[in-house]
Amino acid sequence: MSDRFSSPQVRDLGEQGLLERLQRFCPADVVGDDAAVIPGPELGQALVVTTDVLVDGVHFSDRTTSPQDAGWRAVAANLSDLAAMGASPLGITVGLGITGDVAVSWVLALYQGISDCLKQYNTTIVGGDICRSPVISLSITAFGQVSPNRTIKRTAAKVGDAIVVTGIHGASRAGLELLLNPELGKNLTVAERSLLILAHQRPRPRLDVLPILWNILVDASSCLRVAGMDSSDGLADAVLQLCRASGVGATIERSLIPLPPVLNQLASSEQVWDWVLYGGEDFELVLCLPSEPAEALVEQLGESAAVIGYIAPGNEVWLRDSTGVYGDEVLTLSRGFQHF
Amino acid sequence: MSDRFSSPQVRDLGEQGLLERLQRFCPADVVGDDAAVIPGPELGQALVVTTDVLVDGVHFSDRTTSPQDAGWRAVAANLSDLAAMGASPLGITVGLGITGDVAVSWVLALYQGISDCLKQYNTTIVGGDICRSPVISLSITAFGQVSPNRTIKRTAAKVGDAIVVTGIHGASRAGLELLLNPELGKNLTVAERSLLILAHQRPRPRLDVLPILWNILVDASSCLRVAGMDSSDGLADAVLQLCRASGVGATIERSLIPLPPVLNQLASSEQVWDWVLYGGEDFELVLCLPSEPAEALVEQLGESAAVIGYIAPGNEVWLRDSTGVYGDEVLTLSRGFQHF
Repeated sequence: MSDRFSSPQVRDLGEQGLLERLQRFCPADVVGDDAAVIPGPELGQALVVTTDVLVDGVHFSDRTTSPQDAGWRAVAANLSDLAAMGASPLGITVGLGITGDVAVSWVLALYQGISDCLKQYNTTIVGGDICRSPVISLSITAFGQVSPNRTIKRTAAKVGDAIVVTGIHGASRAGLELLLNPELGKNLTVAERSLLILAHQRPRPRLDVLPILWNILVDASSCLRVAGMDSSDGLADAVLQLCRASGVGATIERSLIPLPPVLNQLASSEQVWDWVLYGGEDFELVLCLPSEPAEALVEQLGESAAVIGYIAPGNEVWLRDSTGVYGDEVLTLSRGFQHF
Repeated sequence: MSDRFSSPQVRDLGEQGLLERLQRFCPADVVGDDAAVIPGPELGQALVVTTDVLVDGVHFSDRTTSPQDAGWRAVAANLSDLAAMGASPLGITVGLGITGDVAVSWVLALYQGISDCLKQYNTTIVGGDICRSPVISLSITAFGQVSPNRTIKRTAAKVGDAIVVTGIHGASRAGLELLLNPELGKNLTVAERSLLILAHQRPRPRLDVLPILWNILVDASSCLRVAGMDSSDGLADAVLQLCRASGVGATIERSLIPLPPVLNQLASSEQVWDWVLYGGEDFELVLCLPSEPAEALVEQLGESAAVIGYIAPGNEVWLRDSTGVYGDEVLTLSRGFQHF
């Protein structure tokens, strides 16, 4: 965005001046001391903690991400990790490393995005740190609470479990592609473009799935065992990680994976499947649970959710295609996103 | 340190390989999922959260800080913030941004330093993130618990309170100077040099003060009100911030401030006082409480602790010298460390 270095800049305000302008994004009673004191988990709930570091030029860029969106996405990623544990949020801390020549308005926009996302999930910034850095970096730590017997673990998948995805995959990666190559989407309607671009810029952590999930399991007097994780590093990665952690294999049916409607207008079929399986950042949940509650969950979540396959014996994850268009293949972790 | 870029480097191992080597620094039951689940605060305790971001070349440098020391210092700073709230630690998360060409041994040494400091205070890493970054950055978020009626707040100082420092000031800054200019310390004994250099490299958060403090207050059936913060940004800054937050002034007696023994061999008197008042990173506690428990606390902490002055009406912080060597002066925040 063109105003990244406009005046006043961070160095004009100094640390205290910048902190004063950022305080409006925090509840008044948690700022101004060495650390924040917040109500801990409720009685009988465990504390859940997750942290992410995002770096300018690596995880976000002015080309595709406004500061508001960078803030939103960073929060969404952390809240998605809480959702993937079955936890509800208690608050986040924000650590910002920043160059002195960044516009104050850029920093405020970043915190606005952070704050906007938090508000959607009734939670807040409870602490932070700002420091000078040669590159902008954003470290978010989110904490939440979970009832110990409702913790969603990667290790809990069992042979025969249905594998549920809570929404479409590939949209975020396609949205990024549209931002990088606007020409690509010239045949899409505004609504179609927006769907994909918003999936990239404003992903929604699936905290909404949790009460639905527990209602179904409690109503069914079912056991509360659910394995799961989020698909932040891609759908294939999620299934593979779940299987590895649980010591099981899986079979995924390609034709059951919910796709965004217009992907085939943007890229070759091979490319589209790469986005769907390995694109990442869709921040859906991938859950493993017995068939009956799985089907009930999909029904309540609506049409973009689906049972895409089953946990199987062994340790291989097979991607099959009952329509016969694609050959069967074994998925591997090596194609996923590697940070180095 | 010369081996920062030795082989194997981070990019040779990849993210998974690096994570596998780092897992030995974490308890086995908190790694390998989207987030860590840890026991929350005990019944009746509130959650305390603090975060710090440290950047290579800004907060630490190979010239003065080994990776072990950088890790230790980062943890110490966060645990010091917990101590300054009256809180005991529950765990930390570590976010590491790192260039691909950093030696794996450098990263392991950093985590060793983190782990060594945590061990001293019976706490652990409970989560983390590693990502590629053009500059090494380390974000630590520490969690603790505090009994709500034993929370040490900056806002609680009252006129007449004694101001206690739990130890000497200026040692960390002098130690840094010795590391930058080894010539300077050539007349010091090994023990004298070590005291100052260790104050810089291996600062000790004063969590040990808390049980002593509460024992004194409870024994005296005294009210449990204590104002305080740590002196991470300098002694002058701590007193000024406390006064500002509490809406009071203070008078500090220069001759009562405990100094490291050999500072006058290293620099001019003016320079020494600059280190003592504004040097920062001594990570002592500056506490405001009624005289009687304050004197008892100083006695139990030993000779490097002292009552250095009193909270006064108004909003000015006066530094006086009853020995008549220095004129009276009003301290201001503007001389403290500014991050931009």
